[in-house]
Amino acid sequence: MFVSRLRKAGRKAIHAGTAFPLEKFKDFLPLEDPDPGLSLGEGNTPLIPLEALGRRLDNLALYAKNESQNPTGSFKDRGTAVAVQQARSLGFSRIGTVSTGNMAASTAAYGARAGLETYVLLKEGTTKTSLQAAGIFGPVLVTVQGDYGRLFHRSLEIGRELGVYFMNSVDPFRVEGYKATGYEIFLQLGETSPDFVFVPLSAGGHLIGLIRAFEDLLEEGYIDRLPVFVGVQAEGCSPIARAFKDGLPRYKRLKKAWTIALAISNPAPPAGNAVLLLIRKHGGFVLSVSDEEMLEAQRTLASEEGLFCQPESAASFAALVKMRNSGAFKGREKAVIVLTGSGLKAPHILDSLPLNVHQFSIEDLEEGLKKLI
Amino acid sequence: MFVSRLRKAGRKAIHAGTAFPLEKFKDFLPLEDPDPGLSLGEGNTPLIPLEALGRRLDNLALYAKNESQNPTGSFKDRGTAVAVQQARSLGFSRIGTVSTGNMAASTAAYGARAGLETYVLLKEGTTKTSLQAAGIFGPVLVTVQGDYGRLFHRSLEIGRELGVYFMNSVDPFRVEGYKATGYEIFLQLGETSPDFVFVPLSAGGHLIGLIRAFEDLLEEGYIDRLPVFVGVQAEGCSPIARAFKDGLPRYKRLKKAWTIALAISNPAPPAGNAVLLLIRKHGGFVLSVSDEEMLEAQRTLASEEGLFCQPESAASFAALVKMRNSGAFKGREKAVIVLTGSGLKAPHILDSLPLNVHQFSIEDLEEGLKKLI
Repeated sequence: MFVSRLRKAGRKAIHAGTAFPLEKFKDFLPLEDPDPGLSLGEGNTPLIPLEALGRRLDNLALYAKNESQNPTGSFKDRGTAVAVQQARSLGFSRIGTVSTGNMAASTAAYGARAGLETYVLLKEGTTKTSLQAAGIFGPVLVTVQGDYGRLFHRSLEIGRELGVYFMNSVDPFRVEGYKATGYEIFLQLGETSPDFVFVPLSAGGHLIGLIRAFEDLLEEGYIDRLPVFVGVQAEGCSPIARAFKDGLPRYKRLKKAWTIALAISNPAPPAGNAVLLLIRKHGGFVLSVSDEEMLEAQRTLASEEGLFCQPESAASFAALVKMRNSGAFKGREKAVIVLTGSGLKAPHILDSLPLNVHQFSIEDLEEGLKKLI
Repeated sequence: MFVSRLRKAGRKAIHAGTAFPLEKFKDFLPLEDPDPGLSLGEGNTPLIPLEALGRRLDNLALYAKNESQNPTGSFKDRGTAVAVQQARSLGFSRIGTVSTGNMAASTAAYGARAGLETYVLLKEGTTKTSLQAAGIFGPVLVTVQGDYGRLFHRSLEIGRELGVYFMNSVDPFRVEGYKATGYEIFLQLGETSPDFVFVPLSAGGHLIGLIRAFEDLLEEGYIDRLPVFVGVQAEGCSPIARAFKDGLPRYKRLKKAWTIALAISNPAPPAGNAVLLLIRKHGGFVLSVSDEEMLEAQRTLASEEGLFCQPESAASFAALVKMRNSGAFKGREKAVIVLTGSGLKAPHILDSLPLNVHQFSIEDLEEGLKKLI
C-alpha cells in the first residue's frame, strides 16, 4: 500500500504544472492541505550512477543524489518548503532562520515566494557572498555577535515573543521535508534500499530526515534492512565524530572551529546527541575528513563525473574513499553519496584551483591546439 | 499518438534511476540509442506559476520555466547532453566549444562525465570566475585573441582537421536538445500551448529549439496555434533586435558591445538571420532591454517570487514588462518566461545590490528585532 502510493505519486510528479513536488509525498508529510503556490519546484533531483568512479573503488555500485539541483542550489529547499507551509497554515506572517549560508538563502527565497516577512540571522563575520545570496530575496538581514549555539535557542524564544516562526536547522517540519530524499532514492533504485548512505553532518536534521524515511520503508515491510548511514563532519569542526569515536553518549561543544567547510561548521549541533543515538542504534558511523580530502573529492567528482558541488558536499565522497581505503567494503555494495549543495555557492574555494590557461591568436590556434592534443 | 507518447514519457520520468531524461523524449530526438551513462540528470525543470506577479501585470497567467535547475545551472545542459551523445556515437574522443561562460562549464562537465578530452575556447579577457567554473571539470582551457564571430567558424574548421567535435551554440544536435523544453512546457500546462514565450536571445539556438518544439506540436494537431515567441537581447548588444525593428532581412554585425549581460552579448549571432526569418514567419518579436531593466527584473523575480536568476535570464521578464507597459496584452494571456541560468553564475552582479545589514548582540537581539517589525 505504502509503496504503491509512493509509486503512483512518482508517476504523477512530472506534470509539475499541476502536481507540485510536495503533493506527491503528501501522505507521508504532516501537512493537511499544502498550497502549491508556495512551492519553487524543490525535490525530484536526479540520482546519478557513477559507474567509472565506482569501478575504481572496489566495484561499488556508486550513486550521487544531486541536491544542488534544488531551486536555491541546496537540499535546504526541501525542508524550507515544508516549514513554510506549516508557518502559513498556523497563520504566521513572519518567518526567520539562523544560518551560516545555504539555509539563509533558502528561507529568504521561500519567504519571498510566500509573501512573508523574513528575518535572517547570521553570524557576525558572515561572508559578503552569503549576505548577498540571501539579500537578493529582500529579507531583513541581521548579523548577531555572540555564541552561535546560544543564538539558535534564543531565536526560538524571541520568535515566540514576537510572532516569528523561526525555521532553524532541526525544525521538525524542516526535517520532515528531508524524508522525501530518502523516498526518492528508494524509488530511483528500483524500489530497493542502498547498502550505504553518506551525508554531510552539521546540525543533524538532514541525516535524521534520511534515516526516518528508510525507517518508514522498513516498518512497512518494503525493505528488509536499513542502509548503513554515514554522517560526515569536517576535521576542523567535528564534535559528533569525536564523541562517536570516543564512545560518548553526548558530544562536547567546541570552543573553536576551523575549516573551509562553513556549511557544516557547527560547534554545537542542536541534534548532535540525537544523531549519536540513532547512528549507534542502526550500526552507522560518524567520520571526519580534512579540508584537503574534501577539496580533492570536489575535484574528483567534477573532473571524473562532471558534478560540481560544494566542498562540504564532497565530504560525503571523501568519507567513502576513506572507508574504502580502510577496507570497509567487500565490493559491489550499493552506495549513495548525497551532494548537498552547488559548487557555485562557494566560488572563493576555486581560487586555489590550479588553472592552466593557454593563449593563442586565431591565426595560431590550429597549430597551438595540435601541440596540445 | 504523439501526445500519448509524450504523456507516457512524462510518467516514466520520475524513476530517474532507470529512465533517464533524454530517453523520455527519445522518439523526438535524432539519436539512435542514447547512453544513460552520459547524462547528468538534465531537464525536467519546474514550471513555476507566478500568480502574484501575474496579477499585477494585466492579470496574466504568468509562468517561469526555471532552467537554472539543470546540472551546471543553465539551459545549456539540455543541448550539451544531446550533442555529447552524438559525438560519442560518431566515435569522437575529443569535444570542444567556443563560449563566453555557461556553455564552457556545461561542455566541460559533460565531457568529463563522458571521459572525452574537452577543449574550451574562450574570448580573451574572460573573467576568472568563468575560467574557474569550467576549469574545475578539467578541460583544456584556451583563451583566443581575435574576433569572436570568426572564432566560431574557425573552430569548426579546425575541429574537422584535428578530430574535435566542436559543439558550439547552434550545433544542430544541441538545438535538438532545447526542443525538450518546449515539450515540457506543453505537458506542464496540461497539454496546452502558452500564448507567449519570452526567451533571452544570443546566438539563436535556444529560441530555434523552442520554436521547433511547438511547430512539431502544431503539425501533429495537438495545439491549434503557435505561441507568440519573443526573443530578448541586451540593448548594448542587440544586432537581431535592431534588424527586426528596421525591417531588415539580415542583421549587421556589431563592432562594439557593452552590457553586463555577457551570456547574451554576441555581436555576430550565428543563427541571427534564421531567427529573424522564423520570428517574422510566426508573428513574433525581437526586443531589447537595458542593463537597468534587467537588474530590476532580476530583483523583482527574487524578492517577489523567490527566483534568483542571472540578469541575462531576467531579460525575459524585463521584456514582458516592457511589452505590457506598451499595451501589448489584453489580460489573462498565458505567458512563459524562460529563466536560462542561475544567479549564482554571476556573483559580481550582486556587488551593486544595496544591502541593509543590521547588527545586534544576542543580548540586544529581542529589542532590536522588535523595532524592525
